[in-house]
Amino acid sequence: MDFCARVGIEIPIVQAPMAGSGGIALATAVARAGGLGSLPAAMLSSDQLAEQIAEFRHATDAPLNVNFFCHDLPEVSPSELEAWAAKLSRFDVELGVDRSSVPAGPSRRPFDDEACRIVERARPEVVSFHFGLPGPALVERVRRTGAIVMSSATIGAEAVWLEQHGCDVVIAQGAEAGGHRGMFLTTDVAAQPATMALLPRVVDAVDVPVVAAGGLADGRGIAAAFMLGAAAVQLGTAYLLCPEALTTSVHRRALARGSVDDTVLTNVLTGRPARGRRNRVIDELGPMAADAPAFPAAGAALAPLRAAAEAAGSGDFSPLWSGQAGAPTTDVPAGRLTRDVIADARRLLDL
Amino acid sequence: MDFCARVGIEIPIVQAPMAGSGGIALATAVARAGGLGSLPAAMLSSDQLAEQIAEFRHATDAPLNVNFFCHDLPEVSPSELEAWAAKLSRFDVELGVDRSSVPAGPSRRPFDDEACRIVERARPEVVSFHFGLPGPALVERVRRTGAIVMSSATIGAEAVWLEQHGCDVVIAQGAEAGGHRGMFLTTDVAAQPATMALLPRVVDAVDVPVVAAGGLADGRGIAAAFMLGAAAVQLGTAYLLCPEALTTSVHRRALARGSVDDTVLTNVLTGRPARGRRNRVIDELGPMAADAPAFPAAGAALAPLRAAAEAAGSGDFSPLWSGQAGAPTTDVPAGRLTRDVIADARRLLDL
Repeated sequence: MDFCARVGIEIPIVQAPMAGSGGIALATAVARAGGLGSLPAAMLSSDQLAEQIAEFRHATDAPLNVNFFCHDLPEVSPSELEAWAAKLSRFDVELGVDRSSVPAGPSRRPFDDEACRIVERARPEVVSFHFGLPGPALVERVRRTGAIVMSSATIGAEAVWLEQHGCDVVIAQGAEAGGHRGMFLTTDVAAQPATMALLPRVVDAVDVPVVAAGGLADGRGIAAAFMLGAAAVQLGTAYLLCPEALTTSVHRRALARGSVDDTVLTNVLTGRPARGRRNRVIDELGPMAADAPAFPAAGAALAPLRAAAEAAGSGDFSPLWSGQAGAPTTDVPAGRLTRDVIADARRLLDL
Repeated sequence: MDFCARVGIEIPIVQAPMAGSGGIALATAVARAGGLGSLPAAMLSSDQLAEQIAEFRHATDAPLNVNFFCHDLPEVSPSELEAWAAKLSRFDVELGVDRSSVPAGPSRRPFDDEACRIVERARPEVVSFHFGLPGPALVERVRRTGAIVMSSATIGAEAVWLEQHGCDVVIAQGAEAGGHRGMFLTTDVAAQPATMALLPRVVDAVDVPVVAAGGLADGRGIAAAFMLGAAAVQLGTAYLLCPEALTTSVHRRALARGSVDDTVLTNVLTGRPARGRRNRVIDELGPMAADAPAFPAAGAALAPLRAAAEAAGSGDFSPLWSGQAGAPTTDVPAGRLTRDVIADARRLLDL
């Protein structure tokens, strides 16, 4: 059965969840247009997540994807954190930040029993994970709800692993993609393959449908992904300038700047490799820093600097996530964008 | 006029020149099949180049592309070279290499007056450059021969520059591509965009035909490139296992190993960023080393180690160039490969 029929949607576009920038308005808009709307759960409390799912259900009958991170909770030693804070101290001085008085940034919660109970009650049609999969018992509980389980592969071996561990659909996340790399069997950032190489390799390696992600910004990219064997595509950055997105104003300004030949993979913003526009903290500490504390500790340490800089209108310390293809420079609503890009792709494919 | 009509070929596939692995047999085979055969001039003497062009002309009436490097001759100080040699000395000891007694490796010659005279005499239908373009006077002399001038862009700005400086065709070289990056307006290796993002950006940025390169290994990739707006494609790694290629045996063995999720951009093998399979020298000195002497000096320094290791059947110190998509694991002849992949692409595109 093809991806749309299986999920129950009309347009083979998955809106990337994008914790921090996605949310109920974006998911609803894409779902109403006929694509798959996704709610990012990683930065929500259980109550917030349950409320957002209820709100989505109230707004539309369309299927819903709820996305969870499933990282291991890091073991970060106090000395590591102190060393990282010491590295940040010159910025603290410059921006007048007093770390002791600033509340920590929002944490990133991995999928657990409590989150699984919400899934069991709310029964989203699709549950997607990032950074691999949770433990087998949790995956089995999610599968028993009838949800289609998806996760991201960044190399061929991860795709095979995901299929073997219960994924119904594999997302092939090419190196172009914005935000966090889903990588979980490799730490070799330099060798992450891009969509043109990764996607056909994943299609050849697994029997489940493959969703293409990374570098897809318009109808041309979608048509190309179908030529490479994708069953559907996932768009993220393309939606970040939509009015429904929760993208911050510093982030919107960075995306609206013309050139997008300045995105890099960096771990200094959160502790895990993620792609975003170059900014000061990436230039001065990274892009990859061997001493960045494990995810999400590096991000928590940066939170006071980010808050102070953003208050002054600066994105110097913010994650300005972006894929290599960037965002369309117009701010069309997400529903129209969804319909426009698939129409362009279908015209190219002559369907 | 479309690319094939303009160049005078039937199949919109350019065989990547690949100095060191390409050569007369490969260029002839691709040209006879209907694609554009390319002779790499960078490691040939003027006499060798003139002979090879004559040999090609004798073998086929098909158009010919001759490819030149156009790097600036590096200024490398003796102290830089000594520091690099000192870094290599532990390998010298291990492999029993006496640097003073080993001849230097082949140099890489930039396009100059002498090379231009060969072009003026032999009048190849296409002249392509890597690392930008030579000076305006040389470009003008090449153009006056009637040759179509091509060069590679790795970011949007390079494509615009090439069009403005006399390129008739721009090659969009995505980050997936094997071998040397053609980058000449940027040194930011971490921000090099992949084909899915770069190709449509270049197509939008210039009016000349765009050839897609990087990550294209089979009919699917070729079809995808056409969806993204390419006028033709350039395949390199795909030809490296063909019997006509001059690929060394250690290189062939590395390419024949299954997984290709281990290519990285490295400058330790030649002094310029290039993509190849990970090996010992990349792992131990790179992948990117700030103190690698400028191209091609780093490669010359490595030559005695490479020779000693290859004599023992090891590719530990060899450039094992490969794009992220790798090579087909069969060793079909280059002509058949050319016809097979375009037939697959046409089937997908339903032409």
